[in-house]
Amino acid sequence: MAVHSLDAALNLQSLGEGRWLGRSHPDWANMVGPFGGLTAAQLLHAACLDPRRLGEPLALTVNFAGAVADGDFEIEAVPVRTNRSTQHWTLTQRQGDQACSTASAVFAVRRPTWSAAELAMPVVPPAAQVPVDVPRSPVTWPRRYEFRFVEGGWPDFHHPREVADSRTVLWVRDDPPRTLDVQALAALADVFYPRVFRRRQRAIPAGTVSLTTYFHAAAAALAAQGDRPLLAVAHGRRFTQGFFDQSAELWGDDGHLLASSHQIVYYKE
Amino acid sequence: MAVHSLDAALNLQSLGEGRWLGRSHPDWANMVGPFGGLTAAQLLHAACLDPRRLGEPLALTVNFAGAVADGDFEIEAVPVRTNRSTQHWTLTQRQGDQACSTASAVFAVRRPTWSAAELAMPVVPPAAQVPVDVPRSPVTWPRRYEFRFVEGGWPDFHHPREVADSRTVLWVRDDPPRTLDVQALAALADVFYPRVFRRRQRAIPAGTVSLTTYFHAAAAALAAQGDRPLLAVAHGRRFTQGFFDQSAELWGDDGHLLASSHQIVYYKE
Repeated sequence: MAVHSLDAALNLQSLGEGRWLGRSHPDWANMVGPFGGLTAAQLLHAACLDPRRLGEPLALTVNFAGAVADGDFEIEAVPVRTNRSTQHWTLTQRQGDQACSTASAVFAVRRPTWSAAELAMPVVPPAAQVPVDVPRSPVTWPRRYEFRFVEGGWPDFHHPREVADSRTVLWVRDDPPRTLDVQALAALADVFYPRVFRRRQRAIPAGTVSLTTYFHAAAAALAAQGDRPLLAVAHGRRFTQGFFDQSAELWGDDGHLLASSHQIVYYKE
Repeated sequence: MAVHSLDAALNLQSLGEGRWLGRSHPDWANMVGPFGGLTAAQLLHAACLDPRRLGEPLALTVNFAGAVADGDFEIEAVPVRTNRSTQHWTLTQRQGDQACSTASAVFAVRRPTWSAAELAMPVVPPAAQVPVDVPRSPVTWPRRYEFRFVEGGWPDFHHPREVADSRTVLWVRDDPPRTLDVQALAALADVFYPRVFRRRQRAIPAGTVSLTTYFHAAAAALAAQGDRPLLAVAHGRRFTQGFFDQSAELWGDDGHLLASSHQIVYYKE
């Protein structure tokens, strides 16, 4: 059986305790360097693979310090502190002696407690009723996903105009389909094209500077979602002086919030 | 003139390049250790003070790895990479050889670009029409702020009951008033009591695990806000298995979004 493209890109070889060798994968290329969601997944995966790791991913912050060049990279993963309920890691992705990305990850032991789902999933047609919209993008990585837009689809770069709202709502999954796990979810948290493209219906230089994702579901709940589409929602708050923030929610098709994610993005002009 | 309590708590002594000595301050005590917002401000301040720092704060993530004991701590601040528009830092707060907090900060050069304020400030009465509500809290740090609740005030721990909504809207500023700067704003991003207290109207063990703040305004815009109250809004999304996330916005009284902030919080029971 062929290895799924995400698993191929997540392939990390141990170089000793807390040191991993990875390699860029042409399937996941962005305009410059790889898809940021893949880098996030690779960094998280390095900590997940570590035998010192306790618990499941709770929070991940990735700072994109510089583009990853095609070829090998190294990840250093350091467990900084382990508590009763949480374990804190710092991670660095390097090429040569240059840091491409820095990250922090928190792992947690989930225990039964009072629970409440305050934010409700938007009411939308089921995925099966929403047509697949093939990526209209000059870059490669969007072809790794199946997009079914409910609201705010691909920007129409041939007809630039300003729109008042940056919200996008879509059903999305890996393509080819793949059973959900936390690595795939970490990548999916970055599946939204930059909100400034949506507002301006134009392609301008833009790139994520820092990405934070909170995971709200245990591994078993992700596996239960299987390879069915997730409902994904994103919007921006303020665009000013070359930077904007966007927030996103990723929902299982049973209505549970699986992840919430936030990023600050650079744009030019 | 007396030194403001925030400035006293932000007092860091240089121990050499990228190393700073700080000290806990009794004015800012939380249930265990200091107010997390103060720790965030202290970490950011260490990078701000560094002569290698370029640009203004854009993003700050603080991971609260363990409680800070009363007394001295050290902050190590490392500029990992400097680009044309951004500079990436990693920071660690230690007591002895234990990390209490890890953090990353991104500084940025802001340049004139297309701008848009997508999220609008909620329509609320002006601060002067909202009465000050003195902190009803057994801990010290809330007395450092002036709270004027528009919605979702102090939880009533004498009458525990479940409410359906975790939203809080308030006008807030330092007490005594202090001209706004990015350090004060970093602290204010954590000024909301845990959303689980609001939902359950009960005090239970809870503490921020990881806090991310995005800064949307330059130093001059913060100074222009002066010492007038900010409008602050917070809400939670999902509370499950011992953790919940909350997001917040902090607005200038001219309607500009000054910061957006997100955190994942531990709770027990």
